[in-house]
Amino acid sequence: MTSRPSTVRGHIVAIGGAEDKTSELAILKRVFELAPEDSHEVSVIATASSIPDQLLPSYEAAFKRLGASQVHALDIQDRQQAAEAEVVRLIQRSGVIFFTGGDQLRLTTVLGGSATLRAVRERLRAGAVVAGTSAGAAAMPSTMIYNGAASDALRKGAVNMTFGLGFVRGMVIDSHFLERGRFTRLMEVGASNPEQLGVGLGEDAAVIIHPDRILETIGPGHVIIIDSRDLASSNIAELEMGAPVAVENMILHAMVSGHGYDVDARRYLVAEELEAVLARRRQE
Amino acid sequence: MTSRPSTVRGHIVAIGGAEDKTSELAILKRVFELAPEDSHEVSVIATASSIPDQLLPSYEAAFKRLGASQVHALDIQDRQQAAEAEVVRLIQRSGVIFFTGGDQLRLTTVLGGSATLRAVRERLRAGAVVAGTSAGAAAMPSTMIYNGAASDALRKGAVNMTFGLGFVRGMVIDSHFLERGRFTRLMEVGASNPEQLGVGLGEDAAVIIHPDRILETIGPGHVIIIDSRDLASSNIAELEMGAPVAVENMILHAMVSGHGYDVDARRYLVAEELEAVLARRRQE
Repeated sequence: MTSRPSTVRGHIVAIGGAEDKTSELAILKRVFELAPEDSHEVSVIATASSIPDQLLPSYEAAFKRLGASQVHALDIQDRQQAAEAEVVRLIQRSGVIFFTGGDQLRLTTVLGGSATLRAVRERLRAGAVVAGTSAGAAAMPSTMIYNGAASDALRKGAVNMTFGLGFVRGMVIDSHFLERGRFTRLMEVGASNPEQLGVGLGEDAAVIIHPDRILETIGPGHVIIIDSRDLASSNIAELEMGAPVAVENMILHAMVSGHGYDVDARRYLVAEELEAVLARRRQE
Repeated sequence: MTSRPSTVRGHIVAIGGAEDKTSELAILKRVFELAPEDSHEVSVIATASSIPDQLLPSYEAAFKRLGASQVHALDIQDRQQAAEAEVVRLIQRSGVIFFTGGDQLRLTTVLGGSATLRAVRERLRAGAVVAGTSAGAAAMPSTMIYNGAASDALRKGAVNMTFGLGFVRGMVIDSHFLERGRFTRLMEVGASNPEQLGVGLGEDAAVIIHPDRILETIGPGHVIIIDSRDLASSNIAELEMGAPVAVENMILHAMVSGHGYDVDARRYLVAEELEAVLARRRQE
Protein backbone atom coordinates (compact mmCIF):
# COMPACT_ATOMS: atom_id res chain seq x y z
CA MET A 1 0.00 0.00 0.00
CA THR A 2 1.51 3.32 -1.03
CA SER A 3 1.53 6.26 1.36
CA ARG A 4 0.14 8.97 -0.92
CA PRO A 5 -2.13 11.22 1.15
CA SER A 6 -5.16 10.42 -1.03
CA THR A 7 -4.78 6.66 -0.61
CA VAL A 8 -7.95 5.03 0.59
CA ARG A 9 -7.56 1.71 2.40
CA GLY A 10 -11.22 0.98 3.09
CA HIS A 11 -13.94 -0.54 0.99
CA ILE A 12 -17.19 1.07 -0.09
CA VAL A 13 -20.31 -1.05 -0.54
CA ALA A 14 -23.21 0.54 -2.40
CA ILE A 15 -26.48 -1.43 -2.20
CA GLY A 16 -29.42 -0.93 -4.58
CA GLY A 17 -32.11 -0.85 -1.91
CA ALA A 18 -32.48 -4.57 -1.29
CA GLU A 19 -36.14 -5.44 -0.75
CA ASP A 20 -35.44 -9.15 -0.35
CA LYS A 21 -34.36 -9.65 3.27
CA THR A 22 -32.50 -12.90 2.51
CA SER A 23 -30.30 -11.32 -0.13
CA GLU A 24 -29.88 -8.22 2.06
CA LEU A 25 -28.47 -10.35 4.90
CA ALA A 26 -26.04 -12.02 2.48
CA ILE A 27 -24.90 -8.58 1.31
CA LEU A 28 -24.54 -7.28 4.90
CA LYS A 29 -22.43 -10.36 5.66
CA ARG A 30 -19.98 -9.34 2.92
CA VAL A 31 -20.01 -5.77 4.30
CA PHE A 32 -19.12 -7.00 7.78
CA GLU A 33 -16.39 -9.34 6.48
CA LEU A 34 -14.66 -6.38 4.83
CA ALA A 35 -14.21 -4.62 8.21
CA PRO A 36 -10.64 -4.23 9.42
CA GLU A 37 -9.51 -6.82 11.95
CA ASP A 38 -9.07 -4.29 14.74
CA SER A 39 -12.69 -3.12 14.85
CA HIS A 40 -15.88 -5.12 14.98
CA GLU A 41 -18.05 -2.18 16.01
CA VAL A 42 -20.71 -0.94 13.58
CA SER A 43 -22.30 2.52 13.30
CA VAL A 44 -25.66 2.72 11.54
CA ILE A 45 -26.54 6.25 10.41
CA ALA A 46 -30.28 6.69 9.83
CA THR A 47 -30.17 10.36 8.85
CA ALA A 48 -31.72 9.73 5.42
CA SER A 49 -34.79 8.09 6.90
CA SER A 50 -38.00 9.62 8.16
CA ILE A 51 -38.72 6.41 10.08
CA PRO A 52 -35.38 5.75 11.85
CA ASP A 53 -37.12 3.99 14.76
CA GLN A 54 -38.45 1.38 12.36
CA LEU A 55 -35.18 0.89 10.48
CA LEU A 56 -32.54 0.92 13.20
CA PRO A 57 -33.61 -2.16 15.22
CA SER A 58 -33.49 -4.49 12.19
CA TYR A 59 -29.97 -3.33 11.23
CA GLU A 60 -28.86 -3.63 14.87
CA ALA A 61 -30.16 -7.19 14.97
CA ALA A 62 -28.61 -8.09 11.60
CA PHE A 63 -25.12 -6.81 12.41
CA LYS A 64 -25.19 -8.38 15.90
CA ARG A 65 -26.10 -11.71 14.33
CA LEU A 66 -23.15 -11.29 11.97
CA GLY A 67 -20.76 -10.87 14.93
CA ALA A 68 -20.58 -7.12 15.63
CA SER A 69 -19.22 -6.47 19.12
CA GLN A 70 -21.34 -3.32 19.37
CA VAL A 71 -23.86 -1.61 17.06
CA HIS A 72 -24.25 2.15 17.47
CA ALA A 73 -27.67 3.28 16.23
CA LEU A 74 -27.05 6.87 15.18
CA ASP A 75 -30.32 8.66 14.60
CA ILE A 76 -28.67 11.94 13.54
CA GLN A 77 -31.60 14.18 12.57
CA ASP A 78 -30.07 17.67 12.52
CA ARG A 79 -26.78 19.51 12.12
CA GLN A 80 -26.35 19.96 15.88
CA GLN A 81 -26.35 16.19 16.37
CA ALA A 82 -23.97 15.82 13.41
CA ALA A 83 -21.48 18.00 15.31
CA GLU A 84 -21.62 16.09 18.62
CA ALA A 85 -18.31 14.83 19.95
CA GLU A 86 -19.94 11.62 21.20
CA VAL A 87 -21.15 10.76 17.69
CA VAL A 88 -17.67 11.42 16.29
CA ARG A 89 -16.13 9.22 18.97
CA LEU A 90 -18.45 6.30 18.07
CA ILE A 91 -17.66 6.66 14.34
CA GLN A 92 -13.94 6.64 15.15
CA ARG A 93 -14.34 3.28 16.93
CA SER A 94 -16.30 1.67 14.09
CA GLY A 95 -15.01 -0.76 11.49
CA VAL A 96 -18.27 -0.53 9.54
CA ILE A 97 -20.25 2.65 8.94
CA PHE A 98 -23.63 1.97 7.36
CA PHE A 99 -26.05 4.52 5.85
CA THR A 100 -29.72 3.51 5.67
CA GLY A 101 -32.11 4.41 2.86
CA GLY A 102 -34.48 7.37 2.78
CA ASP A 103 -33.79 10.71 1.09
CA GLN A 104 -30.24 11.43 -0.05
CA LEU A 105 -30.85 15.15 0.20
CA ARG A 106 -31.50 14.74 3.94
CA LEU A 107 -28.13 12.97 4.20
CA THR A 108 -26.21 15.78 2.56
CA THR A 109 -28.08 18.72 4.09
CA VAL A 110 -27.65 17.32 7.61
CA LEU A 111 -24.15 15.83 7.29
CA GLY A 112 -22.48 18.12 4.72
CA GLY A 113 -19.40 19.78 6.25
CA SER A 114 -20.02 18.16 9.66
CA ALA A 115 -17.54 16.65 12.10
CA THR A 116 -19.40 13.35 11.67
CA LEU A 117 -18.83 13.31 7.91
CA ARG A 118 -15.15 14.19 8.33
CA ALA A 119 -14.83 11.29 10.78
CA VAL A 120 -16.46 8.89 8.30
CA ARG A 121 -14.04 9.95 5.56
CA GLU A 122 -11.08 9.48 7.90
CA ARG A 123 -12.27 6.01 8.84
CA LEU A 124 -12.64 5.09 5.14
CA ARG A 125 -9.09 6.24 4.43
CA ALA A 126 -7.86 4.25 7.43
CA GLY A 127 -9.49 1.01 6.31
CA ALA A 128 -13.08 0.94 7.57
CA VAL A 129 -16.00 -0.13 5.37
CA VAL A 130 -18.48 2.54 4.36
CA ALA A 131 -21.73 0.97 3.16
CA GLY A 132 -25.13 2.32 2.28
CA THR A 133 -28.40 1.24 0.73
CA SER A 134 -30.69 3.15 -1.65
CA ALA A 135 -30.29 6.85 -0.70
CA GLY A 136 -27.24 5.82 1.33
CA ALA A 137 -25.69 4.44 -1.87
CA ALA A 138 -26.76 7.28 -4.16
CA ALA A 139 -25.15 9.88 -1.86
CA MET A 140 -21.67 8.32 -1.91
CA PRO A 141 -20.05 9.99 -4.94
CA SER A 142 -18.85 13.58 -5.10
CA THR A 143 -21.96 14.43 -7.15
CA MET A 144 -25.33 12.73 -6.71
CA ILE A 145 -28.79 12.56 -8.25
CA TYR A 146 -31.51 13.49 -5.73
CA ASN A 147 -34.59 13.76 -7.93
CA GLY A 148 -35.85 13.09 -11.45
CA ALA A 149 -38.74 11.05 -12.86
CA ALA A 150 -37.45 7.94 -14.61
CA SER A 151 -40.07 7.98 -17.38
CA ASP A 152 -38.33 9.75 -20.22
CA ALA A 153 -35.83 11.54 -17.94
CA LEU A 154 -33.69 12.07 -21.03
CA ARG A 155 -34.86 15.68 -21.26
CA LYS A 156 -32.60 18.57 -20.39
CA GLY A 157 -32.90 19.35 -16.69
CA ALA A 158 -35.10 16.35 -15.81
CA VAL A 159 -32.50 15.03 -13.38
CA ASN A 160 -31.68 17.14 -10.33
CA MET A 161 -28.15 16.81 -8.99
CA THR A 162 -26.01 18.32 -6.26
CA PHE A 163 -22.85 17.58 -4.28
CA GLY A 164 -22.80 14.19 -2.60
CA LEU A 165 -20.93 12.91 0.45
CA GLY A 166 -17.68 12.62 -1.51
CA PHE A 167 -16.58 9.06 -0.63
CA VAL A 168 -15.79 8.17 -4.25
CA ARG A 169 -14.99 10.26 -7.32
CA GLY A 170 -15.55 9.78 -11.04
CA MET A 171 -18.97 8.14 -10.91
CA VAL A 172 -22.64 8.68 -10.24
CA ILE A 173 -24.60 5.93 -8.45
CA ASP A 174 -28.32 5.29 -8.93
CA SER A 175 -30.32 2.73 -6.96
CA HIS A 176 -33.59 0.77 -7.58
CA PHE A 177 -32.22 0.95 -11.10
CA LEU A 178 -33.79 -1.85 -13.12
CA GLU A 179 -36.98 -1.92 -11.07
CA ARG A 180 -37.71 1.77 -11.73
CA GLY A 181 -36.31 1.90 -15.28
CA ARG A 182 -33.72 4.57 -14.51
CA PHE A 183 -31.48 4.13 -17.55
CA THR A 184 -32.47 7.54 -18.92
CA ARG A 185 -31.33 9.27 -15.69
CA LEU A 186 -27.75 8.03 -16.10
CA MET A 187 -27.89 8.78 -19.84
CA GLU A 188 -28.76 12.42 -19.10
CA VAL A 189 -25.91 12.64 -16.58
CA GLY A 190 -23.50 11.00 -19.04
CA ALA A 191 -24.48 13.44 -21.77
CA SER A 192 -23.90 16.36 -19.41
CA ASN A 193 -20.40 15.14 -18.53
CA PRO A 194 -19.12 11.99 -20.26
CA GLU A 195 -16.14 11.70 -17.91
CA GLN A 196 -18.31 10.37 -15.10
CA LEU A 197 -19.18 6.67 -15.04
CA GLY A 198 -22.83 5.75 -14.48
CA VAL A 199 -23.40 2.92 -11.98
CA GLY A 200 -26.98 1.64 -11.71
CA LEU A 201 -27.76 -0.74 -8.85
CA GLY A 202 -30.60 -3.24 -9.04
CA GLU A 203 -32.49 -3.61 -5.78
CA ASP A 204 -31.11 -7.01 -4.88
CA ALA A 205 -27.58 -6.19 -5.94
CA ALA A 206 -24.65 -4.29 -4.52
CA VAL A 207 -21.26 -3.19 -5.68
CA ILE A 208 -18.08 -3.36 -3.63
CA ILE A 209 -15.74 -0.53 -4.58
CA HIS A 210 -12.29 -1.89 -3.75
CA PRO A 211 -9.57 0.59 -2.72
CA ASP A 212 -7.96 0.36 -6.16
CA ARG A 213 -11.31 1.24 -7.79
CA ILE A 214 -12.18 -2.25 -8.93
CA LEU A 215 -15.94 -2.78 -8.77
CA GLU A 216 -17.23 -6.19 -7.66
CA THR A 217 -20.89 -7.11 -8.05
CA ILE A 218 -22.61 -9.11 -5.30
CA GLY A 219 -26.19 -10.27 -4.72
CA PRO A 220 -28.74 -11.94 -7.01
CA GLY A 221 -29.54 -8.78 -9.04
CA HIS A 222 -27.71 -6.68 -11.63
CA VAL A 223 -25.31 -3.77 -11.57
CA ILE A 224 -25.54 -1.76 -14.80
CA ILE A 225 -22.62 0.30 -16.09
CA ILE A 226 -23.23 3.20 -18.50
CA ASP A 227 -19.87 4.41 -19.81
CA SER A 228 -20.20 7.67 -21.74
CA ARG A 229 -16.52 8.38 -22.18
CA ASP A 230 -16.63 7.53 -25.91
CA LEU A 231 -19.69 9.75 -26.43
CA ALA A 232 -19.50 10.82 -30.07
CA SER A 233 -22.07 13.63 -29.96
CA SER A 234 -24.92 15.10 -27.94
CA ASN A 235 -27.16 18.12 -28.48
CA ILE A 236 -27.57 18.79 -24.72
CA ALA A 237 -25.71 22.10 -24.62
CA GLU A 238 -27.82 23.62 -27.42
CA LEU A 239 -31.25 22.64 -26.04
CA GLU A 240 -33.96 24.53 -24.19
CA MET A 241 -34.77 23.10 -20.77
CA GLY A 242 -37.17 20.14 -21.14
CA ALA A 243 -36.20 19.35 -24.73
CA PRO A 244 -35.21 15.77 -25.61
CA VAL A 245 -31.51 14.97 -25.33
CA ALA A 246 -29.77 13.03 -28.12
CA VAL A 247 -26.78 10.83 -27.32
CA GLU A 248 -24.54 9.00 -29.75
CA ASN A 249 -22.52 6.06 -28.53
CA MET A 250 -22.67 5.14 -24.87
CA ILE A 251 -21.42 1.73 -23.76
CA LEU A 252 -23.69 -0.47 -21.69
CA HIS A 253 -22.74 -3.40 -19.46
CA ALA A 254 -24.84 -5.55 -17.13
CA MET A 255 -22.85 -7.21 -14.35
CA VAL A 256 -24.02 -10.11 -12.21
CA SER A 257 -22.60 -11.53 -8.99
CA GLY A 258 -18.90 -12.27 -9.34
CA HIS A 259 -18.39 -9.96 -12.30
CA GLY A 260 -16.46 -6.73 -11.99
CA TYR A 261 -15.30 -3.54 -13.62
CA ASP A 262 -12.01 -1.67 -13.50
CA VAL A 263 -13.13 1.96 -13.28
CA ASP A 264 -9.86 3.56 -14.33
CA ALA A 265 -8.99 1.05 -17.09
CA ARG A 266 -12.68 1.06 -18.23
CA ARG A 267 -12.56 -2.69 -18.46
CA TYR A 268 -15.32 -5.24 -17.82
CA LEU A 269 -14.07 -8.21 -15.80
CA VAL A 270 -15.78 -11.58 -16.18
CA ALA A 271 -15.61 -13.84 -13.12
CA GLU A 272 -12.18 -15.38 -13.82
CA GLU A 273 -10.68 -11.98 -14.65
CA LEU A 274 -12.06 -10.39 -11.49
CA GLU A 275 -10.72 -13.25 -9.36
CA ALA A 276 -7.29 -12.88 -10.93
CA VAL A 277 -7.24 -9.12 -10.38
CA LEU A 278 -8.32 -9.44 -6.74
CA ALA A 279 -5.83 -12.29 -6.09
CA ARG A 280 -2.98 -10.21 -7.53
CA ARG A 281 -3.95 -7.31 -5.29
CA ARG A 282 -3.97 -9.50 -2.18
CA GLN A 283 -0.40 -10.57 -2.97
CA GLU A 284 0.84 -6.99 -3.35
CA MET B 1 -34.23 1.29 -58.05
CA THR B 2 -32.91 -2.21 -58.68
CA SER B 3 -35.25 -5.00 -59.71
CA ARG B 4 -34.17 -7.66 -57.20
CA PRO B 5 -37.27 -9.54 -56.05
CA SER B 6 -36.69 -8.55 -52.42
CA THR B 7 -36.56 -4.82 -53.16
CA VAL B 8 -38.95 -2.87 -51.00
CA ARG B 9 -40.10 0.49 -52.33
CA GLY B 10 -42.40 1.50 -49.50
CA HIS B 11 -41.74 3.11 -46.14
CA ILE B 12 -42.46 1.66 -42.72
CA VAL B 13 -43.40 3.96 -39.85
CA ALA B 14 -43.25 2.49 -36.33
CA ILE B 15 -44.87 4.68 -33.66
CA GLY B 16 -44.22 4.28 -29.92
CA GLY B 17 -47.86 4.49 -28.83
CA ALA B 18 -48.34 8.26 -28.95
CA GLU B 19 -50.48 9.37 -26.05
CA ASP B 20 -50.25 13.04 -27.00
CA LYS B 21 -52.89 13.60 -29.69
CA THR B 22 -51.13 16.70 -31.09
CA SER B 23 -47.85 14.89 -31.69
CA GLU B 24 -49.77 11.87 -32.99
CA LEU B 25 -51.44 13.98 -35.66
CA ALA B 26 -48.05 15.41 -36.70
CA ILE B 27 -46.71 11.86 -37.00
CA LEU B 28 -49.78 10.68 -38.98
CA LYS B 29 -49.23 13.65 -41.31
CA ARG B 30 -45.74 12.35 -42.11
CA VAL B 31 -47.19 8.86 -42.60
CA PHE B 32 -49.73 10.17 -45.11
CA GLU B 33 -47.12 12.26 -46.97
CA LEU B 34 -45.06 9.11 -47.57
CA ALA B 35 -47.93 7.47 -49.50
CA PRO B 36 -47.31 6.89 -53.22
CA GLU B 37 -48.84 9.49 -55.54
CA ASP B 38 -51.24 7.06 -57.16
CA SER B 39 -53.13 6.14 -53.98
CA HIS B 40 -54.64 8.36 -51.32
CA GLU B 41 -56.76 5.62 -49.80
CA VAL B 42 -55.99 4.46 -46.27
CA SER B 43 -56.72 1.11 -44.60
CA VAL B 44 -56.80 1.05 -40.80
CA ILE B 45 -56.47 -2.45 -39.36
CA ALA B 46 -57.77 -2.67 -35.78
CA THR B 47 -57.10 -6.38 -35.27
CA ALA B 48 -54.80 -5.78 -32.28
CA SER B 49 -57.43 -3.88 -30.35
CA SER B 50 -60.18 -5.17 -28.08
CA ILE B 51 -61.98 -1.83 -28.52
CA PRO B 52 -61.90 -1.32 -32.32
CA ASP B 53 -65.16 0.66 -32.27
CA GLN B 54 -63.53 3.26 -30.04
CA LEU B 55 -60.28 3.48 -32.03
CA LEU B 56 -61.41 3.37 -35.63
CA PRO B 57 -63.50 6.60 -35.79
CA SER B 58 -60.62 8.78 -34.54
CA TYR B 59 -58.19 7.35 -37.11
CA GLU B 60 -60.83 7.72 -39.83
CA ALA B 61 -61.28 11.37 -38.89
CA ALA B 62 -57.52 12.02 -38.68
CA PHE B 63 -56.65 10.55 -42.06
CA LYS B 64 -59.64 12.26 -43.74
CA ARG B 65 -58.49 15.59 -42.33
CA LEU B 66 -55.03 14.89 -43.75
CA GLY B 67 -56.50 14.43 -47.25
CA ALA B 68 -57.28 10.70 -47.59
CA SER B 69 -59.74 10.10 -50.42
CA GLN B 70 -61.20 7.09 -48.56
CA VAL B 71 -60.49 5.47 -45.18
CA HIS B 72 -61.28 1.77 -44.88
CA ALA B 73 -61.92 0.82 -41.25
CA LEU B 74 -60.94 -2.84 -41.17
CA ASP B 75 -62.10 -4.44 -37.95
CA ILE B 76 -60.61 -7.86 -38.77
CA GLN B 77 -61.30 -9.95 -35.66
CA ASP B 78 -60.77 -13.52 -36.84
CA ARG B 79 -58.99 -15.60 -39.46
CA GLN B 80 -62.10 -15.92 -41.62
CA GLN B 81 -62.28 -12.15 -41.99
CA ALA B 82 -58.53 -12.06 -42.68
CA ALA B 83 -59.16 -14.32 -45.68
CA GLU B 84 -61.99 -12.27 -47.20
CA ALA B 85 -61.51 -11.17 -50.79
CA GLU B 86 -63.14 -7.81 -50.09
CA VAL B 87 -60.57 -7.01 -47.38
CA VAL B 88 -57.74 -7.96 -49.72
CA ARG B 89 -59.22 -5.74 -52.44
CA LEU B 90 -59.33 -2.72 -50.09
CA ILE B 91 -55.71 -3.29 -49.01
CA GLN B 92 -54.65 -3.49 -52.66
CA ARG B 93 -56.18 -0.06 -53.29
CA SER B 94 -54.52 1.58 -50.27
CA GLY B 95 -51.44 3.80 -50.24
CA VAL B 96 -51.31 3.72 -46.44
CA ILE B 97 -51.95 0.66 -44.30
CA PHE B 98 -52.11 1.49 -40.60
CA PHE B 99 -52.12 -0.96 -37.65
CA THR B 100 -53.65 0.29 -34.39
CA GLY B 101 -52.39 -0.55 -30.90
CA GLY B 102 -53.62 -3.37 -28.70
CA ASP B 103 -52.03 -6.79 -28.35
CA GLN B 104 -49.42 -7.80 -30.92
CA LEU B 105 -50.18 -11.47 -30.34
CA ARG B 106 -53.74 -10.86 -31.59
CA LEU B 107 -52.23 -9.32 -34.72
CA THR B 108 -50.08 -12.31 -35.51
CA THR B 109 -52.50 -15.05 -34.49
CA VAL B 110 -55.30 -13.54 -36.61
CA LEU B 111 -53.23 -12.30 -39.58
CA GLY B 112 -50.35 -14.79 -39.74
CA GLY B 113 -50.36 -16.60 -43.10
CA SER B 114 -53.53 -14.79 -44.24
CA ALA B 115 -54.36 -13.36 -47.64
CA THR B 116 -54.66 -9.95 -45.95
CA LEU B 117 -51.07 -10.11 -44.65
CA ARG B 118 -49.77 -11.21 -48.05
CA ALA B 119 -51.55 -8.24 -49.59
CA VAL B 120 -49.99 -5.84 -47.09
CA ARG B 121 -46.50 -7.18 -47.84
CA GLU B 122 -47.12 -6.79 -51.58
CA ARG B 123 -48.29 -3.21 -51.12
CA LEU B 124 -45.15 -2.43 -49.06
CA ARG B 125 -42.92 -3.84 -51.80
CA ALA B 126 -44.83 -1.83 -54.40
CA GLY B 127 -44.39 1.47 -52.54
CA ALA B 128 -47.22 1.84 -50.01
CA VAL B 129 -46.60 3.00 -46.42
CA VAL B 130 -47.08 0.46 -43.66
CA ALA B 131 -47.46 2.19 -40.31
CA GLY B 132 -48.39 1.05 -36.83
CA THR B 133 -48.53 2.28 -33.27
CA SER B 134 -47.67 0.41 -30.05
CA ALA B 135 -48.55 -3.25 -30.72
CA GLY B 136 -48.81 -2.34 -34.39
CA ALA B 137 -45.17 -1.20 -34.28
CA ALA B 138 -43.86 -4.06 -32.14
CA ALA B 139 -45.29 -6.67 -34.54
CA MET B 140 -43.48 -5.34 -37.64
CA PRO B 141 -40.18 -7.26 -37.55
CA SER B 142 -39.70 -10.91 -38.38
CA THR B 143 -39.45 -11.64 -34.64
CA MET B 144 -41.31 -9.69 -31.97
CA ILE B 145 -41.61 -9.35 -28.19
CA TYR B 146 -45.17 -10.01 -27.01
CA ASN B 147 -44.74 -10.17 -23.23
CA GLY B 148 -42.21 -9.54 -20.46
CA ALA B 149 -42.21 -7.38 -17.32
CA ALA B 150 -39.86 -4.43 -17.72
CA SER B 151 -38.67 -4.41 -14.10
CA ASP B 152 -35.47 -6.41 -14.21
CA ALA B 153 -36.39 -8.26 -17.40
CA LEU B 154 -32.71 -9.06 -17.77
CA ARG B 155 -33.31 -12.58 -16.50
CA LYS B 156 -33.19 -15.57 -18.78
CA GLY B 157 -36.62 -16.19 -20.28
CA ALA B 158 -38.26 -13.02 -18.88
CA VAL B 159 -39.05 -11.78 -22.38
CA ASN B 160 -41.47 -13.83 -24.49
CA MET B 161 -40.95 -13.68 -28.24
CA THR B 162 -42.42 -15.21 -31.36
CA PHE B 163 -42.61 -14.60 -35.10
CA GLY B 164 -43.82 -11.14 -36.10
CA LEU B 165 -45.53 -9.86 -39.25
CA GLY B 166 -42.21 -9.87 -41.14
CA PHE B 167 -42.24 -6.39 -42.69
CA VAL B 168 -38.62 -5.68 -41.67
CA ARG B 169 -35.68 -7.93 -40.82
CA GLY B 170 -32.65 -7.56 -38.55
CA MET B 171 -34.30 -5.71 -35.69
CA VAL B 172 -36.67 -5.98 -32.77
CA ILE B 173 -39.00 -3.04 -32.03
CA ASP B 174 -40.30 -2.18 -28.56
CA SER B 175 -42.81 0.60 -27.83
CA HIS B 176 -43.69 2.74 -24.76
CA PHE B 177 -39.97 2.34 -24.27
CA LEU B 178 -38.76 5.15 -22.03
CA GLU B 179 -42.07 5.51 -20.22
CA ARG B 180 -42.09 1.85 -19.12
CA GLY B 181 -38.33 1.49 -18.64
CA ARG B 182 -37.94 -1.31 -21.19
CA PHE B 183 -34.17 -1.15 -21.68
CA THR B 184 -33.67 -4.54 -20.05
CA ARG B 185 -36.07 -6.20 -22.51
CA LEU B 186 -33.93 -5.23 -25.50
CA MET B 187 -30.78 -6.11 -23.56
CA GLU B 188 -32.06 -9.65 -23.00
CA VAL B 189 -32.93 -9.95 -26.70
CA GLY B 190 -29.51 -8.57 -27.69
CA ALA B 191 -27.74 -11.05 -25.42
CA SER B 192 -29.74 -13.92 -26.94
CA ASN B 193 -28.76 -12.89 -30.48
CA PRO B 194 -26.42 -9.90 -30.91
CA GLU B 195 -27.04 -9.72 -34.66
CA GLN B 196 -30.46 -8.13 -34.15
CA LEU B 197 -30.67 -4.39 -33.57
CA GLY B 198 -32.85 -3.20 -30.67
CA VAL B 199 -35.11 -0.25 -31.49
CA GLY B 200 -36.97 1.29 -28.53
CA LEU B 201 -39.69 3.82 -29.33
CA GLY B 202 -40.71 6.50 -26.83
CA GLU B 203 -44.46 7.11 -26.76
CA ASP B 204 -44.36 10.45 -28.55
CA ALA B 205 -41.78 9.37 -31.09
CA ALA B 206 -41.76 7.33 -34.25
CA VAL B 207 -39.20 5.96 -36.63
CA ILE B 208 -39.48 5.99 -40.40
CA ILE B 209 -37.72 2.97 -41.90
CA HIS B 210 -36.72 4.14 -45.37
CA PRO B 211 -36.50 1.52 -48.16
CA ASP B 212 -32.68 1.52 -47.93
CA ARG B 213 -32.91 0.78 -44.17
CA ILE B 214 -32.09 4.27 -43.00
CA LEU B 215 -34.00 5.06 -39.79
CA GLU B 216 -35.34 8.59 -39.34
CA THR B 217 -36.68 9.74 -35.97
CA ILE B 218 -39.78 11.97 -35.86
CA GLY B 219 -41.91 13.39 -33.04
CA PRO B 220 -41.02 15.11 -29.77
CA GLY B 221 -39.82 11.93 -27.99
CA HIS B 222 -36.83 9.61 -28.26
CA VAL B 223 -35.93 6.56 -30.27
CA ILE B 224 -33.36 4.44 -28.44
CA ILE B 225 -30.98 2.14 -30.29
CA ILE B 226 -29.35 -0.80 -28.50
CA ASP B 227 -26.68 -2.28 -30.76
CA SER B 228 -25.36 -5.59 -29.41
CA ARG B 229 -23.26 -6.55 -32.41
CA ASP B 230 -20.00 -5.85 -30.54
CA LEU B 231 -21.14 -7.88 -27.53
CA ALA B 232 -17.94 -9.11 -25.89
CA SER B 233 -19.45 -11.73 -23.60
CA SER B 234 -22.66 -12.92 -22.00
CA ASN B 235 -23.48 -15.80 -19.67
CA ILE B 236 -27.01 -16.30 -21.09
CA ALA B 237 -26.41 -19.73 -22.65
CA GLU B 238 -25.07 -21.18 -19.39
CA LEU B 239 -27.85 -19.95 -17.09
CA GLU B 240 -30.88 -21.58 -15.55
CA MET B 241 -34.19 -19.97 -16.54
CA GLY B 242 -34.82 -16.87 -14.37
CA ALA B 243 -31.15 -16.29 -13.52
CA PRO B 244 -29.68 -12.81 -14.08
CA VAL B 245 -28.09 -12.26 -17.50
CA ALA B 246 -24.69 -10.54 -17.76
CA VAL B 247 -23.82 -8.50 -20.83
CA GLU B 248 -20.49 -6.95 -21.71
CA ASN B 249 -20.42 -4.09 -24.20
CA MET B 250 -23.62 -3.04 -25.85
CA ILE B 251 -23.77 0.32 -27.63
CA LEU B 252 -26.52 2.76 -26.71
CA HIS B 253 -27.82 5.70 -28.73
CA ALA B 254 -30.73 8.08 -28.10
CA MET B 255 -32.09 9.71 -31.23
CA VAL B 256 -34.33 12.77 -31.36
CA SER B 257 -36.38 14.22 -34.21
CA GLY B 258 -34.26 14.71 -37.32
CA HIS B 259 -31.57 12.24 -36.24
CA GLY B 260 -31.14 8.91 -37.96
CA TYR B 261 -29.38 5.59 -38.05
CA ASP B 262 -28.05 3.51 -40.92
CA VAL B 263 -29.02 -0.04 -39.92
CA ASP B 264 -26.63 -1.89 -42.21
CA ALA B 265 -23.64 0.45 -41.74
CA ARG B 266 -24.39 0.64 -37.97
CA ARG B 267 -23.89 4.37 -38.13
CA TYR B 268 -25.60 7.10 -36.09
CA LEU B 269 -26.56 10.07 -38.27
CA VAL B 270 -26.83 13.53 -36.73
CA ALA B 271 -29.29 15.91 -38.43
CA GLU B 272 -26.95 17.17 -41.18
CA GLU B 273 -25.70 13.65 -41.95
CA LEU B 274 -29.24 12.28 -42.20
CA GLU B 275 -30.27 15.14 -44.49
CA ALA B 276 -27.28 14.47 -46.73
CA VAL B 277 -28.00 10.74 -46.89
CA LEU B 278 -31.70 11.27 -47.70
CA ALA B 279 -30.90 13.97 -50.30
CA ARG B 280 -28.40 11.66 -52.03
CA ARG B 281 -31.03 8.92 -52.12
CA ARG B 282 -33.61 11.23 -53.71
CA GLN B 283 -31.15 12.03 -56.52
CA GLU B 284 -30.47 8.38 -57.26
